[in-house]
Amino acid sequence: MTPRGGFISFEGIDGSGKSTQARLLAAHLEARGHAVVLTREPGGSPGAEEIRKLVLEGPPDRWSAETEILLFTAARRDHLERTIRPALAAGKLVICDRFADSTRMYQGLRGAGLRRMVDALHDLMIAQEPDLTLLIDMDPAIGLARALARQGGEERFESFGQSMQERMRAGFLDLAHSAPARIRVVDGARAQDRVAADVAAIVMAHLAGTDAA
Amino acid sequence: MTPRGGFISFEGIDGSGKSTQARLLAAHLEARGHAVVLTREPGGSPGAEEIRKLVLEGPPDRWSAETEILLFTAARRDHLERTIRPALAAGKLVICDRFADSTRMYQGLRGAGLRRMVDALHDLMIAQEPDLTLLIDMDPAIGLARALARQGGEERFESFGQSMQERMRAGFLDLAHSAPARIRVVDGARAQDRVAADVAAIVMAHLAGTDAA
Repeated sequence: MTPRGGFISFEGIDGSGKSTQARLLAAHLEARGHAVVLTREPGGSPGAEEIRKLVLEGPPDRWSAETEILLFTAARRDHLERTIRPALAAGKLVICDRFADSTRMYQGLRGAGLRRMVDALHDLMIAQEPDLTLLIDMDPAIGLARALARQGGEERFESFGQSMQERMRAGFLDLAHSAPARIRVVDGARAQDRVAADVAAIVMAHLAGTDAA
Repeated sequence: MTPRGGFISFEGIDGSGKSTQARLLAAHLEARGHAVVLTREPGGSPGAEEIRKLVLEGPPDRWSAETEILLFTAARRDHLERTIRPALAAGKLVICDRFADSTRMYQGLRGAGLRRMVDALHDLMIAQEPDLTLLIDMDPAIGLARALARQGGEERFESFGQSMQERMRAGFLDLAHSAPARIRVVDGARAQDRVAADVAAIVMAHLAGTDAA
């Protein structure tokens, strides 16, 4: 069997536990001898982190949706060039907390025209998908309670409220349905170690080339 | 006659005197009672100026050409939304020192693929040209001597040297040839006031709708 691509992303609504699961997977793979780069978006390279700051700081209307999409795409291009592709070329596994699917969902909820813009911009300037995406799926009521309990930064992305999270969850599930070979849905409402065990099993099968996809 | 569009850009190689001519035109039009917004790229709005800083500061290889194009396009989108379109909507004339043609030239000289990327990104995210563009044309030897004498900032853009400026001049003239109704070529190697008189005559005819275009 041919070894499979090592670019793995985690997606899901706020509070779904995807960042925790990304860390647990990195530890699992490192314990098995893999060289792993754990990264995140927006950000993930020094230049992309600076762009991230520019986008996330300041008042919510500081940038239009379109300018924000361009800035996130610039950050993603930098992240790909400076962090993800060099790591993959060196034979490492890359685990990324959010990638292009998050932009599709967040901006897509702001309008169908923006979603088409995101897709066209992605095709033109990024043109790369993860080899495997773990969608940590969860009832938004649970995810929202977890997100609020965290009280972290990034208020702008965390403040959409429950109905937005419900639309986001539905959007992610639609996306998974449209790309079943890449996106695997994992029930995130269970205990952390059970979710982690499912994630690890899917990833090990993917890397071994023994999964159905 | 219908009043003509009031979005006017200046283009040309480094040291061609386009910034000076933009200022002189603004003063000329204000003296005739027009409300004028004089602006520049990259930059021209608070957000775009911050993006400009991010692009122009730091080492030359801080960003790839593709990431730089995305950042400049984000800055241009912000500049259009926050400065140019509101001014035009209020009936003002907008005079802009550099616009998309500069990006086409600078990035286009780095490769045909980049030029196609610039054009596609422009069509997708900007989709607006000035109503009139003044190309201040000049022998690069003269322009380069003027630019070096100025010893200003933006070393990265000023340091291309004479052969690059020659290719840039040829590129601008090709562009003018392909869009004669929008881009008017003005001989910039003459005395400043003679250049300014030609510019003013072209702009007044454009605004009155009595030019050939």
